[in-house]
Amino acid sequence: MTELIKRRDIDFLLYEFLNVEQLLAHPRYADHDRKVFDAIIDTAVKIAEEKFQTCAKDLDNNEPSFDGQKVTLIPQVKEALRAFAEAGFPAATYANEQDGLQLPWTVFQAAMAYFHAANISLSAYPLLTGAAANLLNAHGSVEQKALYLPHMLSGRFFGTMCLSETQAGSSLSDIRTRAEPTDQGYYLIKGTKMWISGGEHDLAENIIHMVLAKIPGGPPGVKGISLFIVPKIHVQPDGSLGERNDVALAGLNHKMGYRGTVNTVMSFGEKDNCKGYLIGEPHKGLECMFHMMNEARIGIGMGATTIGYAGYLYSLDYARQRPQGRHPLNKNPQSPQVPIIEHADIRRLLLTQKSYVEGALALQLYCAMLVDEQKISADTNRKQVLALLLDILTPIAKSWPSEFCLEANKLAMQILGGYGYTREYPLERLYRDNRLNPIHEGTHGIHGIDLLGRKVRMAGGKAFTTLLDHIRETIREASGNRTLQAYAGQLSNTLQEVEKTTAVLIACENLNLSLANSTIYLDMLGHVVIAWTWLRQAIVVAANAGNATGDDKDFYQGKLAACRYFFHYELPKTHGMMQLLQSLDDTCLNITSSQL
Amino acid sequence: MTELIKRRDIDFLLYEFLNVEQLLAHPRYADHDRKVFDAIIDTAVKIAEEKFQTCAKDLDNNEPSFDGQKVTLIPQVKEALRAFAEAGFPAATYANEQDGLQLPWTVFQAAMAYFHAANISLSAYPLLTGAAANLLNAHGSVEQKALYLPHMLSGRFFGTMCLSETQAGSSLSDIRTRAEPTDQGYYLIKGTKMWISGGEHDLAENIIHMVLAKIPGGPPGVKGISLFIVPKIHVQPDGSLGERNDVALAGLNHKMGYRGTVNTVMSFGEKDNCKGYLIGEPHKGLECMFHMMNEARIGIGMGATTIGYAGYLYSLDYARQRPQGRHPLNKNPQSPQVPIIEHADIRRLLLTQKSYVEGALALQLYCAMLVDEQKISADTNRKQVLALLLDILTPIAKSWPSEFCLEANKLAMQILGGYGYTREYPLERLYRDNRLNPIHEGTHGIHGIDLLGRKVRMAGGKAFTTLLDHIRETIREASGNRTLQAYAGQLSNTLQEVEKTTAVLIACENLNLSLANSTIYLDMLGHVVIAWTWLRQAIVVAANAGNATGDDKDFYQGKLAACRYFFHYELPKTHGMMQLLQSLDDTCLNITSSQL
Repeated sequence: MTELIKRRDIDFLLYEFLNVEQLLAHPRYADHDRKVFDAIIDTAVKIAEEKFQTCAKDLDNNEPSFDGQKVTLIPQVKEALRAFAEAGFPAATYANEQDGLQLPWTVFQAAMAYFHAANISLSAYPLLTGAAANLLNAHGSVEQKALYLPHMLSGRFFGTMCLSETQAGSSLSDIRTRAEPTDQGYYLIKGTKMWISGGEHDLAENIIHMVLAKIPGGPPGVKGISLFIVPKIHVQPDGSLGERNDVALAGLNHKMGYRGTVNTVMSFGEKDNCKGYLIGEPHKGLECMFHMMNEARIGIGMGATTIGYAGYLYSLDYARQRPQGRHPLNKNPQSPQVPIIEHADIRRLLLTQKSYVEGALALQLYCAMLVDEQKISADTNRKQVLALLLDILTPIAKSWPSEFCLEANKLAMQILGGYGYTREYPLERLYRDNRLNPIHEGTHGIHGIDLLGRKVRMAGGKAFTTLLDHIRETIREASGNRTLQAYAGQLSNTLQEVEKTTAVLIACENLNLSLANSTIYLDMLGHVVIAWTWLRQAIVVAANAGNATGDDKDFYQGKLAACRYFFHYELPKTHGMMQLLQSLDDTCLNITSSQL
Repeated sequence: MTELIKRRDIDFLLYEFLNVEQLLAHPRYADHDRKVFDAIIDTAVKIAEEKFQTCAKDLDNNEPSFDGQKVTLIPQVKEALRAFAEAGFPAATYANEQDGLQLPWTVFQAAMAYFHAANISLSAYPLLTGAAANLLNAHGSVEQKALYLPHMLSGRFFGTMCLSETQAGSSLSDIRTRAEPTDQGYYLIKGTKMWISGGEHDLAENIIHMVLAKIPGGPPGVKGISLFIVPKIHVQPDGSLGERNDVALAGLNHKMGYRGTVNTVMSFGEKDNCKGYLIGEPHKGLECMFHMMNEARIGIGMGATTIGYAGYLYSLDYARQRPQGRHPLNKNPQSPQVPIIEHADIRRLLLTQKSYVEGALALQLYCAMLVDEQKISADTNRKQVLALLLDILTPIAKSWPSEFCLEANKLAMQILGGYGYTREYPLERLYRDNRLNPIHEGTHGIHGIDLLGRKVRMAGGKAFTTLLDHIRETIREASGNRTLQAYAGQLSNTLQEVEKTTAVLIACENLNLSLANSTIYLDMLGHVVIAWTWLRQAIVVAANAGNATGDDKDFYQGKLAACRYFFHYELPKTHGMMQLLQSLDDTCLNITSSQL
């Protein structure tokens, strides 16, 4: 069977590229060692392959159904999630005293990669529950945590994030759901939420909704948004379930992909009796939410990356097996057909995918490592540097894989030709699934504005210069290496252009014009960052590949070829993008609706 | 209701851009005038909207089913196709004496655009039947034509093209279907064909299969392929149906999109009694096929273009209606939300689509016009020029829209956000449908090799220089116009680089290396050709827009803005592509299977 994610690559990234073992020096991880990490990933591979991947096609073919009473999923989903919970994954990153494994987030992300790659519409349930649990853990009161968290971490309760409404998707400030205070210690919630993944199902005993709502009298806009716990069923202090809360499924959305993830319209307070419990302070809900946003967005990027990765390996396996055609110079039609991997264009389709998905995976795990380091660092300055780096990398880590690993899936499908277009093969499902990622958790365009409008300018430009400093450090390291110095020079020149381009955009006094091409800025800087991760990988290869033989030698050679590909075929694309950005082109800004 | 294709654009392309009325000077079209053309397009719009579009969602949700006896489609399909036939479309381009309308192919293509845009998986049936009929009309004997053609043109019989087999998709030389001669005037066909669209259904009284097979003893490879008529049911000279032929449905393929087009595995001669009738000479089957290939491939490109076009107009309409967010400079959250078309990035997504789909439509109809001109031209030299131009443009006309109008659909879906990802809106269907186009009728990669390996080199490079000459003529025309001269200069510089790049590639003695990046060459030359169609459109606008007012003024301004967009945002991308091509990069050629 084809691997879902190349294990050799995971090992390379964790132990050679990131040196994740450096975390072991910290007391939180002192009880761990590489063996523990490996065993956890082994377990993830096993459950992902045996429980998640095996039902992916079935789940896609049989999306959750609603009979007016309850939402039903195929039984394998519950079974897979039970195995996931029994192995301890929901609480893996939590402290021992919370029955967690105290696993570094980086290792956890590497493990999650397999579940996403196997069946993203199934792994979305623990992903969402994890996001809700993390929010509660970070901002809930002691009592709130005691009441809900153990059950969410054991897999008994699931969670959701209820942000969007029909009229408020990208524009959260326009939500209308209201929370009326009572003197009973709870609020009465009333409103309808849209696009709620996991809003209703038969997979868990209870569903804990994290709901954004406005308390009357609060400030307008995002500054008046508060965050509430709204359980589907009320929970007693002893953990047993009480009465049903006034939360109802209003309808299902039927999606192109991610079909196993039930997506709902949820109605809160139809009978004026929906009780919600405030998390944190009134009107500070979005701030709580934003604290968790980096991790959630890296989670989306990781999902996009792994769907791309699974497609890459599938198409690679197919290309090695499928005979079709002959080399251009072979004019003998009676000679046997060659496997299509012999054709240069098929290799190009594969190498493009490889450079995208392995580059993206390196970035995802690098960002995860920033989260870990930030968590344990005692040095305030270092902590700030890590936070800035993470802030500016987040829109890229979310968006670049959502765009380019989707493209990878497109290429994978192309390798299978007509077969890839049929539902008998998994590629078309991966492609449909991945198409969601540039849309949810902030659209591609929103992240462009976030990057150029906010992140690049924040802290007097310090996040931006911090990123550039880190890239320059890599360039310096690479400059000493004969094979890599050309790439170092190329990246250095590109970086100068990035600085110049960014300066022009920031100097532009017309904000509308400055931001008009921000998505192109996002794609451009994303390509630069991925080139950086490739150069960093190449440096590690140069250091470690010396005596490699056999498969290991091939692995390292492949890394260098993918790096070369990215620098020859991809990074040069940023030049044209930057020319355009520097010109402050107003074509799109100025065209009128009636001219379109 | 949103238009499927902008009628003003169709009129612009037919009467201003192509001056299709010049064809009226030829005796074949002498009975027509613009009124007739307009009436035919009116009819197409009406039937497309009322019969094709109305069942598109239903057909996608209810793909053809096989109960072991017969294949059933939803009843609206038959009804739509009856309306199509009753309006005379199947025979529209045929001569009066064949009960045709003697319509120019260009006008017919403009009419077909509406059917494709409305419901491509339905319009595929007449498209395939038309291809089979054209093949028969061009190469069949008088008796063969008399027996089958009237029924295919009346809509009573449908047709298929049976080329691929499981082991022979892109590599036709490897087909194994055999045709044993008998002394009864027919051949006995035996073999299994894969990916046969319309192979079995309940839409017509009979299905006429055009089957490629090998007569034993013939030359190996493509030179030993012959072409046969294989009716599902034998036809009597009086047109009545006789015995069932030995043709059987072996299975259905289930596709991501194009779901309404039943796609089959067909078994010929399971009972050793499948009668086939040779078309043309033995072993010359592929040549017959190739005669029709240009038109078939332009048909695919037209399909891809129109799916993109329909998505563009749908997303444009949505963007005008959907309120969400505020301008960057507006910090008042209590001000009303603006329609999303007010956001520069949404306008960019729209203008990108516009430049792709309107540029592609201009190219499709230009190519159609070349077909028409070629058909009626009395001048041998001119005929040859037209043939060369059509030969070199065909891989681009097929592939560029298949790639970039698919991208347009991706952007259209993005504009609708989460809604676009649901099956309640048509975008995700259009996106799924369009994904087939880079795969069938020659994959994207195959057309890259066709373009760079064959078309650019054919006739001593004459097709290539003919194309360049035509582009240069446009550049000369544009140079005299103050608004357009910058574009003329830019395209002229690009063209010099194209010539240089092409020279380097042709001079490369290692054919494998020369062709290693041929898909990039295809995309690059495609972009140059689309820039050319935009410059040609801009010239027409400059000539005609002088006194335009109201909607017409907006229309012309929009054309100029899209031209500007393409020259500012898209054409510059070719520079990097050509740098890469000139470097004869061997990264993809040389990576080994085990390094991937």
